[in-house]
Amino acid sequence: MTETVRLSLDDARALSLQALARAGLTSDHCEALADLVMAGQIDECHSHGLYRVLSCADAIRKGKVDTAAVPEIFDQAPGIVRVDAKFGFSPLAFRLGLPLLQEKARTQGVAALAINNCYHFSALWPEVERLAAAGLAALAMTPSHSWVAPAGGTKPVFGTNPIAFAWPRPGPYPFVFDFATSASARGEIELHRRAGKPIPEGWAIDKDGAPTTDPEAAMAGAMLTFGGHKGSALSAMVELMAGPLIGDLTSRASQIFDAGAGVTPCHGELLLAFDPNLLSGGHAAEHAERAEVLFDAIVGQGARLPSQRRYAARERSHANGSVEIPKSLHDDLLALLG
Amino acid sequence: MTETVRLSLDDARALSLQALARAGLTSDHCEALADLVMAGQIDECHSHGLYRVLSCADAIRKGKVDTAAVPEIFDQAPGIVRVDAKFGFSPLAFRLGLPLLQEKARTQGVAALAINNCYHFSALWPEVERLAAAGLAALAMTPSHSWVAPAGGTKPVFGTNPIAFAWPRPGPYPFVFDFATSASARGEIELHRRAGKPIPEGWAIDKDGAPTTDPEAAMAGAMLTFGGHKGSALSAMVELMAGPLIGDLTSRASQIFDAGAGVTPCHGELLLAFDPNLLSGGHAAEHAERAEVLFDAIVGQGARLPSQRRYAARERSHANGSVEIPKSLHDDLLALLG
Repeated sequence: MTETVRLSLDDARALSLQALARAGLTSDHCEALADLVMAGQIDECHSHGLYRVLSCADAIRKGKVDTAAVPEIFDQAPGIVRVDAKFGFSPLAFRLGLPLLQEKARTQGVAALAINNCYHFSALWPEVERLAAAGLAALAMTPSHSWVAPAGGTKPVFGTNPIAFAWPRPGPYPFVFDFATSASARGEIELHRRAGKPIPEGWAIDKDGAPTTDPEAAMAGAMLTFGGHKGSALSAMVELMAGPLIGDLTSRASQIFDAGAGVTPCHGELLLAFDPNLLSGGHAAEHAERAEVLFDAIVGQGARLPSQRRYAARERSHANGSVEIPKSLHDDLLALLG
Repeated sequence: MTETVRLSLDDARALSLQALARAGLTSDHCEALADLVMAGQIDECHSHGLYRVLSCADAIRKGKVDTAAVPEIFDQAPGIVRVDAKFGFSPLAFRLGLPLLQEKARTQGVAALAINNCYHFSALWPEVERLAAAGLAALAMTPSHSWVAPAGGTKPVFGTNPIAFAWPRPGPYPFVFDFATSASARGEIELHRRAGKPIPEGWAIDKDGAPTTDPEAAMAGAMLTFGGHKGSALSAMVELMAGPLIGDLTSRASQIFDAGAGVTPCHGELLLAFDPNLLSGGHAAEHAERAEVLFDAIVGQGARLPSQRRYAARERSHANGSVEIPKSLHDDLLALLG
C-alpha cells in the first residue's frame, strides 16, 4: 500500500500556492494554477492534481517558462479572442481570455478563444466545464509533443492531442468528456515501465514499426492513436486546428522548440464556445430537455456518462472537506518549500 | 463479376437529373442532388453515387419528403446562419446557406451553418470540401437514426453520426476526412447479410447485448461505436451539437419521427467554418506551410492521408470522362424514367 497523507482543501490549496510561489511564479499565475491543481485533485485525477506542481517547478527550473508573463489579449475579430500567453503557463491566459470569449459567444452565437505561446499545463475538462457553467457548449483541443504515429505509419508525428467537450445541464454536473486521441496517455506507458509490466496490445509500436507490449520499446518507438484510421484522422485535425489554424506550433514543431529539455509542451490551444439559445433559434430550454432524454437513454441502460467517476470523486472530496495524496508527493512538495 | 455499364459524365448527370425530376423534385432540388450524386460517383463512393437516386425516389414515394420545399434562410446572429429545409432534401438547403456562411466566417473568424428539418442525403465530405475550396477550414456533423449502443450499454441510442473535417491546401485536393462514429456503416452489415458472410468482431452486439458476428443478430441488436468509450463520447457530442444545440432532433427522436417508414433520416446538420487568416492573426500563409510539413511527415513515411483513395478515383474518372456503375443499378435508374 502507498502511504498517504490527507489534507484539508484549504491546506492543499495553500501548499500548492506556496510551492508555486517559491518556484518563482507571480501571484496571478499561482492563483490560476492552484485552482486547476485543486480541481484535478478534488476529482481524483491524480496526474492533474498536486502532482502537477512538481512538473511545473521542474519546467521553471529548466529556464523554459516565463514565470512573470503577462498574457496579452487581442480582440482579433467579432468571433475571435486571441491571447498571447508570452511563454508563460496556459491557465492565466485562459482565465483572462474567458470573459471576452463568453461575451462573444453570447452575441455572435459561436466564438473561438485561441491561446498562443503557452506552456500547456492543465487538463482541458476544467476549461470546458467553466464554459458549460456559463450555459455554453464548448469544444477544446491542443497538440502536445510528437510521440504518436499516424495510422499506417511507424514514425511519431502527432501528439497525444486531447479533445474535450462540454454540454450544459441542469444542476452542477455538465456532460463533459476529455480524452487523448492516442490509445493511452504517455504517463501510463511510463507507469507500466516502472512497474515492470507489459503494456496492452494496440498502444504502441517499436522503433521498427512492429507492435510491441514492451514499455521500453514503446517509448523508443511510437505510440498509436485510439480507433485506428479514424482516431488518426482526429489527431491530425487537432494538430491543424490547434496549430496552424491559430498560428501556432504542431506537436513536431513544439518538440523541436523544446530542444530536449523535456518540459511540458509549448504551443497553442483552441477553445470554441457555442450559445445554445442563438443556435437553436431561441428554443434552448425545449431542446435542453431533448438532451436530457438522450442522457436518460444512456444512463437508463446502465451505461456511464463520460465524467461520472470524476463527479463521484468530487462529491466525496467535498463531503470529506479533504483530499488524499501519496506521502512521497507530500514530501516532494514540502521539499519545494525548502 | 458484376456486369457494369460505363456512362460519360454528361450522360450520368443527365440520367440522375431525369430520374430525380421524374420522382417529382423541383429543378432546384434536382440540380443540387445531381451535383452530389455525381461527386460521389466520380470519387467511386458508390453508396453516395447514382445508387442514392434510388433511395431518394423511395423516400419520395413513401410520401415523407417535400419535393418542392423552398428552404428559408435566417441570418440568426452575426456568427450563425440557420436554414430551415422545410422537410425537403438537405443539399439545396446547404447550397443556399453556403454564401452567407462563407461571408460570416470571413468577417467573424468562425461561423456556423445550422440546417434544420432536412432529409439528410449526402456524405459530408462534398460540403466541407466546398468550404476548403473557399480557403476555409470546416467541421461538419449530423445524427442519423438510433442504431448504435453507447459504450457499456446494450440498447441503440446513437446514430452512425458522421464527423467530417476539411483543411484547405494548395492545389485541388484539401485534407479531408469524413467517417461514421459507428464501427461500421449500417450498409456494410446489410452487405454482409446479403452475402451470407459473418461481420468482423467489434461491429455489433445482439439483442441481449452479447458480441455477435451474425449480421441478422446485429441488425436486431445494436451496432457499436468505433474506438470504445472515446468513440461513444464523440457520438454523443454529434447528437448534442447537430441536435439539441441547433434546435433539432436526436437520432432517437428522428427514428420516432420516421415512424417505421425506413426512409433517410430527417433531422439537422451543423457545419462550422473557420477563417485561417483571422484565427492566425493574419499569418495564414506562413502557417499553411507548417501544415504541409505535417502532411509530408505522414505521407513521407508511407502512411495515407484520409481521402487519398477518393482523390485517385476522381483523377481516374475525369481522365476517363466517364464512370462505371453496375448494370442492375442502371436498369433500376432507367426503370424510374419508365
